[in-house]
Amino acid sequence: MGIRVAVAGASGYAGGELLRLIAGHPELDLVAATAHSQAGQPVAAVHPQLTGLDLVFGRTEPAVLADADLVFLALPHGESAALAAALPDGVRLVDLGADHRLTDAAAWTRYYGGSHAGAWTYGLPELPGQRAAIATATRVAATGCYAVATTLALAPLLAAGVAAPDDVVVVAASGTSGAGRSAKPHLLGSEVMGDLSPYKVGAHQHVPEIKQASGATGLSFTPVLAPMPRGILATVTAPPVGDNPAEPREVLAQAYADAPFVHVLPAGRWPHTAATLGSNSCHLQATVDVDSGRLIVVSAIDNLGKGAAGQAVQCANLMLGLPETTGLSVHGVAP
Amino acid sequence: MGIRVAVAGASGYAGGELLRLIAGHPELDLVAATAHSQAGQPVAAVHPQLTGLDLVFGRTEPAVLADADLVFLALPHGESAALAAALPDGVRLVDLGADHRLTDAAAWTRYYGGSHAGAWTYGLPELPGQRAAIATATRVAATGCYAVATTLALAPLLAAGVAAPDDVVVVAASGTSGAGRSAKPHLLGSEVMGDLSPYKVGAHQHVPEIKQASGATGLSFTPVLAPMPRGILATVTAPPVGDNPAEPREVLAQAYADAPFVHVLPAGRWPHTAATLGSNSCHLQATVDVDSGRLIVVSAIDNLGKGAAGQAVQCANLMLGLPETTGLSVHGVAP
Amino acid sequence: MGIRVAVAGASGYAGGELLRLIAGHPELDLVAATAHSQAGQPVAAVHPQLTGLDLVFGRTEPAVLADADLVFLALPHGESAALAAALPDGVRLVDLGADHRLTDAAAWTRYYGGSHAGAWTYGLPELPGQRAAIATATRVAATGCYAVATTLALAPLLAAGVAAPDDVVVVAASGTSGAGRSAKPHLLGSEVMGDLSPYKVGAHQHVPEIKQASGATGLSFTPVLAPMPRGILATVTAPPVGDNPAEPREVLAQAYADAPFVHVLPAGRWPHTAATLGSNSCHLQATVDVDSGRLIVVSAIDNLGKGAAGQAVQCANLMLGLPETTGLSVHGVAP
Amino acid sequence: MGIRVAVAGASGYAGGELLRLIAGHPELDLVAATAHSQAGQPVAAVHPQLTGLDLVFGRTEPAVLADADLVFLALPHGESAALAAALPDGVRLVDLGADHRLTDAAAWTRYYGGSHAGAWTYGLPELPGQRAAIATATRVAATGCYAVATTLALAPLLAAGVAAPDDVVVVAASGTSGAGRSAKPHLLGSEVMGDLSPYKVGAHQHVPEIKQASGATGLSFTPVLAPMPRGILATVTAPPVGDNPAEPREVLAQAYADAPFVHVLPAGRWPHTAATLGSNSCHLQATVDVDSGRLIVVSAIDNLGKGAAGQAVQCANLMLGLPETTGLSVHGVAP
Repeated sequence: MGIRVAVAGASGYAGGELLRLIAGHPELDLVAATAHSQAGQPVAAVHPQLTGLDLVFGRTEPAVLADADLVFLALPHGESAALAAALPDGVRLVDLGADHRLTDAAAWTRYYGGSHAGAWTYGLPELPGQRAAIATATRVAATGCYAVATTLALAPLLAAGVAAPDDVVVVAASGTSGAGRSAKPHLLGSEVMGDLSPYKVGAHQHVPEIKQASGATGLSFTPVLAPMPRGILATVTAPPVGDNPAEPREVLAQAYADAPFVHVLPAGRWPHTAATLGSNSCHLQATVDVDSGRLIVVSAIDNLGKGAAGQAVQCANLMLGLPETTGLSVHGVAP
Repeated sequence: MGIRVAVAGASGYAGGELLRLIAGHPELDLVAATAHSQAGQPVAAVHPQLTGLDLVFGRTEPAVLADADLVFLALPHGESAALAAALPDGVRLVDLGADHRLTDAAAWTRYYGGSHAGAWTYGLPELPGQRAAIATATRVAATGCYAVATTLALAPLLAAGVAAPDDVVVVAASGTSGAGRSAKPHLLGSEVMGDLSPYKVGAHQHVPEIKQASGATGLSFTPVLAPMPRGILATVTAPPVGDNPAEPREVLAQAYADAPFVHVLPAGRWPHTAATLGSNSCHLQATVDVDSGRLIVVSAIDNLGKGAAGQAVQCANLMLGLPETTGLSVHGVAP
Repeated sequence: MGIRVAVAGASGYAGGELLRLIAGHPELDLVAATAHSQAGQPVAAVHPQLTGLDLVFGRTEPAVLADADLVFLALPHGESAALAAALPDGVRLVDLGADHRLTDAAAWTRYYGGSHAGAWTYGLPELPGQRAAIATATRVAATGCYAVATTLALAPLLAAGVAAPDDVVVVAASGTSGAGRSAKPHLLGSEVMGDLSPYKVGAHQHVPEIKQASGATGLSFTPVLAPMPRGILATVTAPPVGDNPAEPREVLAQAYADAPFVHVLPAGRWPHTAATLGSNSCHLQATVDVDSGRLIVVSAIDNLGKGAAGQAVQCANLMLGLPETTGLSVHGVAP
Repeated sequence: MGIRVAVAGASGYAGGELLRLIAGHPELDLVAATAHSQAGQPVAAVHPQLTGLDLVFGRTEPAVLADADLVFLALPHGESAALAAALPDGVRLVDLGADHRLTDAAAWTRYYGGSHAGAWTYGLPELPGQRAAIATATRVAATGCYAVATTLALAPLLAAGVAAPDDVVVVAASGTSGAGRSAKPHLLGSEVMGDLSPYKVGAHQHVPEIKQASGATGLSFTPVLAPMPRGILATVTAPPVGDNPAEPREVLAQAYADAPFVHVLPAGRWPHTAATLGSNSCHLQATVDVDSGRLIVVSAIDNLGKGAAGQAVQCANLMLGLPETTGLSVHGVAP
């Protein structure tokens, strides 16, 4: 008998990826997957890629979930706190939503509206000290997809003092699954194929999370929707500090020497998203811009992998005392 | 220590997928991966999705491969026989190429030219008796991608006598990885995105293999290149036999009741390729056409999974006495 | 002053393409574009590709349209008849919907339900005699997208008696715009990219139209949704008649010698959809299958061009006494 | 009889688009299209979208081109100067390549190597004074695709003194046709679909052109290859000047009030590439970043339209005394 886990809100894209990872995980037993309007449906009718998984969606209610050792929450914004409060204290929780990521309640209110539900342990194991913090936590707020891609690229350069935190510029393009599964006209295949479109330009709600996680103090962040189902490519630039900037690639390589999922590529090779598909890996590369002198770091992840479900399983592994990499793939599915 | 395996011709797309599957396989140890022009290159420089796999391509020579318990051959047409002859008899071989699939030498010569190298045990475990034959074989010719998709859809209907073998019509669309990795202008992204293009219309070299494997005696087969990296969707139609045709879905369900990778979907759900991405699964559904009375079966596979590398690993598992499903996924990576 | 035209139901994909074609047409003046829920919106807010077109959607009401010389109807099924009845007799109508295509009321009821609104002149100018019929008609039902692609490939072979009409098998893949603009989950970009999915297998509502237009008496028609915004590729096969079948390519070339938009490609070149993007062209090629002897014809069109809006403008040109090609492009936008 | 034009180097993607535009242009007659290895081939065999255009590629030699009133040069880098020198002085030239864009010979040598061939009149009619300059020029160097997208977004803000020129950061993603038609493995459909990949990070050869054209003095420019055939989306940011920055959208709207192809979108609507497909339009929108205060401008073009062939025809129209918009479309082909 393995460790009993459940997924609340399992009918969306991150939920489906969680179910896939749990089904292939050698130590986890899936005891429940819940949904709202899809409750009562076979999981494989909603997620045809999980054909062979013989399970029916339950309702997202405490009674369905209380029996698990650990529950993944993949719920819409604002629904995590109430459900968490209704579950027994002994049930570990990993929240894939944004509700418990920010420590600054005012920032929450500014970007999301409403009152803040309070911060949980921040689920980015690669940040200094965070692996240990997650391992002892019972409530973890997994990092958002854009914040993963940006923070892994940026945080070591700011921590090492080689990049200036006050004028960071990020342009990050994401596959469409990052926009979720609700049927909106601008997300139709006819609209997104052959198209690149920016959105929430000038004021994206992930800005405070990225600043909190990375240490940036001034951040221009522009997200772009790209014609592919998965993947985030973040181009992160920051001004250098001092006259003789350290080689940024070396700073990153040192920071992630022991991180099994973060790969600073050999010099000359740049990250691209397809190489991370289906994996929990983040690929990084960095250089100094010849003309402007800015440090440029490019990071690539699978937004549903290291950006969501993979990250959540990685946190769960740590919380459960399992090796961090259990049930997760370093390798992507390509081409 | 696991079972020692090697991949000859590992720089192509099927080769890369083999390396990915072997790296995640709990019983196999990869001892060599060879290539031609890429020999000496790090594997991850050629297959960036395998970043973290610390291996350099060797040369495709007997000495590099002779030490393995089993060698996967992912070579261009016509190169398998010579390499096989130069390897010790004790080395098991699974050939992903077409060289040893056909029992009819004349058919080989007609479609491929040159003299036929002789047939090996045909690597489609789901055919009657074939699972046992593969388990005792030392030389297996894994099924071609179009033949997998078509034969799994068709063979049970012909064997059961509910469909006529002499007027089978198949249209099968494939992702571009099926066309290989050599850089040809018509395979450029600029050409294939937004495009569907038929090729080798009226005389495709896979026709004799499909006829041999499925039992069809008259076959119109039209392949189409589709704008996606992976996946085959085959639409297979055949005239019904008799006045009261059996329900084709039931015939298929019975035939594959014990096949772990072939899923006859619940009535009303039709296969689509994305649900099989990265998996070794084949999804099937069937009906009787209201207007023409023809039986219609649709099958979906990942051409690099069940259509190539996954199939090859499935055969290797059987040859090595391992459970058929070891190291292979039933679930796809979607969306 | 040009000829006054209007588009009823202009907020969908076919409607948008009509507006684009009319805006570039040297003889037509757009006097109204109507919509339902989008009425009151600027056209360019709904169709950003028409930025620069300074027009607001009106309501789909007779009063808004009655002033035009010709009205294009791009309405949901079942809405054309009532609107047509409410417009003055002198207003010419081209219906892009299915309401008035079928001459067989029973077939209508079987596939669409409800009672049939009656047939109008069938809008496929390339059928024998049809160009003249359209030129004198005031009510034209433009051909459906799948029917265009299939009929242009098939009708000449059946008319010439070289192919048998009773066992026609068609598999046709379409870009997603053919499924319309209403936001349904299975049409999301995340679902369709990287995917091929069949639908309405065994009983598609376009079967009676294709039979009526092409002369087929037995038809297996399987439509497939393909990961691209536009384009239809139809693979049409039929048994040969007689022992010495005519060369099918020659039959087609002769049939379309005077058709400005139908191109039978030089031997050896096969149609592909991208070459027709944005144009009103249909590309055709044919051969005899080596194994089965079946005749195989492949046709490619832009489903919104020759399959919808282009076809409708071609019909309008004929009805208005203009050269058939006015304002339409033979050339596609590629790559 | 129209004006006689020819295209040198017409077998590539920009060349094909030029042929399409010329074929639809009411005042231009195409008298020759030349190529290197494709000389002697029918144009439609190389560009199937031009089926119906009855023309064979000539050789790229002065004798084939000397008879034209205007020649478009779509040649590889470094080949324009020699051909131009061999043509009669009376032949007007529009070069789509980079050879004659830069006024700074040292910058040319640094990024391209070799000696500089000298600057021609810069072909961006929307820059102040440039429309008149082009109208009287006989030699015009059309703007590069990335430079079009970036300069149109940036130049008015720098000219108006509302943005600082010394810390401009640009991330621009392009469809694959921008990388040309030579068959390279990383441009295969299997590689680019589902993928975003940066390239030439930190030192792109278009940096000096963008600085020269826009007035930027410090520029970080990162190009990204996106999974679509056409389109560029440029995200351009610059620090504000002064404490009360002007509304950047208003500055742009004023600058382009009379430019028929540059559309500053209504507030709230952001550019996306699909809306410009096949057109000569550039869509722009701007805002001030809430967190960083940076000005952000996003521009979208078709890289083969306003970014190459469309721009070249626009310049040719001016040079020939035709209305600037003749034969060019403001509207895109979408979806």
